[in-house]
Amino acid sequence: MISFYTWGTPNGRKVAILLEELGLAYDTIAVNLGRNEQFAPGFLAISPNNKIPAIVDHSAEGGALSVFESGAILTYLAERHGRFLPAEGAARYKALEWLHWQMGGLGPMLGQLGYFEKFAKEKSAVASARFIAEADRLLSVMDKRLADSHYLAGDDYTIADIAAYPWVVTADTFLADVLAERLATKPALLAWMEKIAARPAVKRGMAVPAL
Amino acid sequence: MISFYTWGTPNGRKVAILLEELGLAYDTIAVNLGRNEQFAPGFLAISPNNKIPAIVDHSAEGGALSVFESGAILTYLAERHGRFLPAEGAARYKALEWLHWQMGGLGPMLGQLGYFEKFAKEKSAVASARFIAEADRLLSVMDKRLADSHYLAGDDYTIADIAAYPWVVTADTFLADVLAERLATKPALLAWMEKIAARPAVKRGMAVPAL
Repeated sequence: MISFYTWGTPNGRKVAILLEELGLAYDTIAVNLGRNEQFAPGFLAISPNNKIPAIVDHSAEGGALSVFESGAILTYLAERHGRFLPAEGAARYKALEWLHWQMGGLGPMLGQLGYFEKFAKEKSAVASARFIAEADRLLSVMDKRLADSHYLAGDDYTIADIAAYPWVVTADTFLADVLAERLATKPALLAWMEKIAARPAVKRGMAVPAL
Repeated sequence: MISFYTWGTPNGRKVAILLEELGLAYDTIAVNLGRNEQFAPGFLAISPNNKIPAIVDHSAEGGALSVFESGAILTYLAERHGRFLPAEGAARYKALEWLHWQMGGLGPMLGQLGYFEKFAKEKSAVASARFIAEADRLLSVMDKRLADSHYLAGDDYTIADIAAYPWVVTADTFLADVLAERLATKPALLAWMEKIAARPAVKRGMAVPAL
């Protein structure tokens, strides 16, 4: 059994999708960010950065294992169950490069855009302009890649796609007022979104946690 | 032989340190960001995100393999040579969670702070304040971890330390005017920095590329 600490954010949903794709049994513990539950001492012991998602795999080899950071959780689950991340060779590192690209680029830049557009008490036109430009650049990199390749890592669906998908959905929904027009110019990205969205496990994962 | 595309930035230096720690033979190709050489078509084929670092391992199994994104390159080299990243078990995922923490948090937040403090044509007090606070928070998370643990992943030096070190050096040098006082309040982090700085391979890696 896996304890899954999450909330309705793109980083949480990456892990929800993979848990669903793998058909694993898990208990969802909703960590209400609106009530600052991520700062509770019990959660800090599992996630020292005070962020969701985090998991505890109670049936890990060698005893219960906690993992934080969505990219590390995806890698752990994929390696433990031998799916969605090739064990070796070029295909493995194509998946890992796009996973890290999401972790270090697409996620943080869309995250900062969301902060300055939606959450910041004081707006900054300079910051908004920077993060809109960065978001557009990164979505274009992805569109270009997907014009040449079925999935981010190549022919197969991997944890790189699972990591990127909820962030692209955020661009298309929560950030639609600044990004929808830009997304509309990226046909390969839109076709990939539709393909991922049609997966039953993705539909189920995107609805976790049920609120 | 490895072709190593880099420049004198923290992300480039992570890979330089690991190449030196592993004692690998590599050719350094300096990609001058000041002259926009990262946008040259030849480089784009290796690094579709137009960023350094990237490598081509000409002696990879199955033929030459290119890898971009520093976190993916560190993982590739560590796995190929069986060092600085345990092959399995809890120790492996402790290293990967701190590697992803650096990739998704410490790196992007210090990077944005650097942008708004040093490079942006138009300053934004709101953005500077946000990224100073985020940088301080992340450095505190690291300090707290290192108060309990010799290295980020536990008892052993791993690619998580190699990934974080050049960014902490950047906080202490390039961003000293806004972060030096904050670093001074983090003793476990300072002790870790000293320990890492003393490694001969780290000294050599931090001097790549020679300019």
